[in-house]
Amino acid sequence: MEPPQENIVIRGWVRTKRDMKNLVFVEVNDGSCFSSIQCTFDGVPVPPGLSTGCSVEISGTLIASPAQGQAVEVAALSITLLGDAPGEEKNGIAPYPLQKKRHSLEFLRELPQLRGRTNTLAAVMRVRNRLSYAVHRFFQDRGYHYLHTPVITGNDAEGAGSMFRVTTLDPARKAAGAAQAAESIAAKQGDSPYAGDFFGRETFLTVSGQLEAETYATALSRVYTFGPTFRAENSNTVRHLAEFWMIEPETAFFRLPENMTLAEDFLKFCLNTILDECAEDLAFFNERIEKGLIDTLRSVVESEFVHLTYTDAIAELEKAQGSRPFEFKPYWGCDLQSEHERFLTEELIKGPVIVTDYPREIKAFYMKQNDDGKTVRAMDVLVPRLGEIIGGSEREENLEALERRMAELGMNAEHYSWYLDLRRYGTVPHSGFGLGFERLTQYITGMTNIRDVIPYPRAAGQLF
Amino acid sequence: MEPPQENIVIRGWVRTKRDMKNLVFVEVNDGSCFSSIQCTFDGVPVPPGLSTGCSVEISGTLIASPAQGQAVEVAALSITLLGDAPGEEKNGIAPYPLQKKRHSLEFLRELPQLRGRTNTLAAVMRVRNRLSYAVHRFFQDRGYHYLHTPVITGNDAEGAGSMFRVTTLDPARKAAGAAQAAESIAAKQGDSPYAGDFFGRETFLTVSGQLEAETYATALSRVYTFGPTFRAENSNTVRHLAEFWMIEPETAFFRLPENMTLAEDFLKFCLNTILDECAEDLAFFNERIEKGLIDTLRSVVESEFVHLTYTDAIAELEKAQGSRPFEFKPYWGCDLQSEHERFLTEELIKGPVIVTDYPREIKAFYMKQNDDGKTVRAMDVLVPRLGEIIGGSEREENLEALERRMAELGMNAEHYSWYLDLRRYGTVPHSGFGLGFERLTQYITGMTNIRDVIPYPRAAGQLF
Repeated sequence: MEPPQENIVIRGWVRTKRDMKNLVFVEVNDGSCFSSIQCTFDGVPVPPGLSTGCSVEISGTLIASPAQGQAVEVAALSITLLGDAPGEEKNGIAPYPLQKKRHSLEFLRELPQLRGRTNTLAAVMRVRNRLSYAVHRFFQDRGYHYLHTPVITGNDAEGAGSMFRVTTLDPARKAAGAAQAAESIAAKQGDSPYAGDFFGRETFLTVSGQLEAETYATALSRVYTFGPTFRAENSNTVRHLAEFWMIEPETAFFRLPENMTLAEDFLKFCLNTILDECAEDLAFFNERIEKGLIDTLRSVVESEFVHLTYTDAIAELEKAQGSRPFEFKPYWGCDLQSEHERFLTEELIKGPVIVTDYPREIKAFYMKQNDDGKTVRAMDVLVPRLGEIIGGSEREENLEALERRMAELGMNAEHYSWYLDLRRYGTVPHSGFGLGFERLTQYITGMTNIRDVIPYPRAAGQLF
Repeated sequence: MEPPQENIVIRGWVRTKRDMKNLVFVEVNDGSCFSSIQCTFDGVPVPPGLSTGCSVEISGTLIASPAQGQAVEVAALSITLLGDAPGEEKNGIAPYPLQKKRHSLEFLRELPQLRGRTNTLAAVMRVRNRLSYAVHRFFQDRGYHYLHTPVITGNDAEGAGSMFRVTTLDPARKAAGAAQAAESIAAKQGDSPYAGDFFGRETFLTVSGQLEAETYATALSRVYTFGPTFRAENSNTVRHLAEFWMIEPETAFFRLPENMTLAEDFLKFCLNTILDECAEDLAFFNERIEKGLIDTLRSVVESEFVHLTYTDAIAELEKAQGSRPFEFKPYWGCDLQSEHERFLTEELIKGPVIVTDYPREIKAFYMKQNDDGKTVRAMDVLVPRLGEIIGGSEREENLEALERRMAELGMNAEHYSWYLDLRRYGTVPHSGFGLGFERLTQYITGMTNIRDVIPYPRAAGQLF
């Protein structure tokens, strides 16, 4: 909007109020962008007690600003105080906890209902929003179908991590009674003690939508999931959540090379979109959260991702082990540690790298087996400053090979009969990958603690 | 693509194969759209056993089709059979269950891993996909921020329905042990038997993201949720799921009139998008699932939604009760039944209607109270052929009024202190609404059973 504009109405929350001679300056923010707008009261009275956090409605004229650092401001004609935010205890209400000063992220974590009103968390949530939309735009523009895979599942995740149980039985208060009831129903209906539970069987919160995504990729050709996933792991780190959002594209007729290209294009599109559309928020993160952030993101966007087999990667790591010892000594067959991944992407390649063809022993049962009998067509995308950001693979589409692998691992083929159907009937090569949305948001914002990039973080012992 | 085009490659699944003299016609579909493409083999051999469900790769030339009902076809030069789908038992594998014939939706429900390969389910999932994206486009274009509200919650939903428990305790198999362990930990840590559970307290699957959405609406001004929600209700009907997706926009500074406009615009945008972008799939639903479907959708898009207070609606219902008795006799204070809603929208108004200002006794605690002391600023959007499709309200933003209402209802204010903070600090008028995504998908596709519009339906006793 070009100034001057009469009859402007501003609604939002007061960030600061400054009194200068006959003037009062009130900075108002409504969360739609990083910048607040300055409203200048020249001889116009402001309500007593107006302070940080109050909600207001201000009428006036948008004018070019004489002040530095802002193109426009509002010459205010009137102000209505919509909601108070007392700076001191008042009528039994504690003072507004987000007074104008820097608050630690730890402190803000205890106030999830209010922390969205701070510069940092609002910027994170705006980036998170644009990033979500970028995910959808990327896949929709390429003919992918958004698939809502189920949250409640009967699959037991095959070691992908500890799972939360979903139940209408009560394990504590009525434990004895519920167990008794369940057992008595079970005795009638069959052998499962969960015959009396809501679904008549054991159910859990999903750890991944991949297997179900495969069922629809072999129907609609291109699908992606973007939904919540869960791990009941007791990991109280800055990188783990018990509830987080995952993105999992799955593509029929793709083999590993096409899957790698998709992952590279996807990551670049996401970063580019935020660089383009969230410049103001990113400038803040670059300045206050992590220096050099924007340069890192730009360099990823401008790079060509290098491809490296796991076997070659191990050779390089073993070579490097002479001059700069790793905590975990690398050897063929080991899982790559974070220090190894960061060496590969930050020191060896100095840019994004996709490591492929991992030993099958350290990867999931569904990955496509190579002819060497030792490796699978897995891929991990590693980026500087983080390490692994995407993991994926071509899937084993051959029925006999998949059944053999499941038998080796002692898996119950009966339980996966539905999944094996995809190999029994019209099987096709297909590939996919997964990435944690919060991990990506952390990477783009530079936020250190994953609990600060999701509105309401859930972790062991912590539920705000 | 304009024919002729040489060196075309088609990858997909065989829908039908017909042999005619020296010609073989193979219809191939890859799920990207409703139509299959016909590949004609003139003197080119096709693999033995090629049949419905097989996956194939076909090379040839795209040509203008001499046949009726299709603009183009492929003059095939070669074909590779990627995956068999035996029509009869073969090597111990049962015949492909989706042979070329009509299958009942009941039958398909037992095969969620394969039913996406049928015309009906693929069409539903394509519409569902475009509808999901339309939701995002609508809100993103209006400056709304997509908010991921938590799935695991400590809120007890205040009677919004039965909830699933989330736990790492085991209520059946190790019931006695778990209860004992939980109790012994509880004895050490405090008074809750859930002190030993993952979060150190009782947790459930969310029934709504609204309260958390309000916390971010009063920070970013405009937010919307689009995520899974859960009800552990034992309702085995064609309209209920235990797990379904909800859309809940929440807007700061909106009062009821703006909220009504948003709901109307939103619904029209969704319907219009599908009419525009899924014409082929809709034509199928109109022809095979519900006659008149497209006309109904068009009439909603072209209508102006009528506004009617609950009090006026009851007066009209009471008037109509004389000539056409309702099963449930309407009276001021009653909850509107489906038959009442359909009378209002289908017979009285003959179009979409928004009923407002319901008795506070039949609505939720957080709704804005009118000055009459009897009604709240609720709104339900009713549409022909369905009844209620959207429910919402202006929210009570006055601290004292909200606390008074919660006390009347015997609610624990302590437990909602975080929510009351929004009224303690910088409170603003705000409004929102919710709608069930599967209900909307049913409305648009005409599908009778809600289990046929979600990839993996979850209902009491049923988990495929």
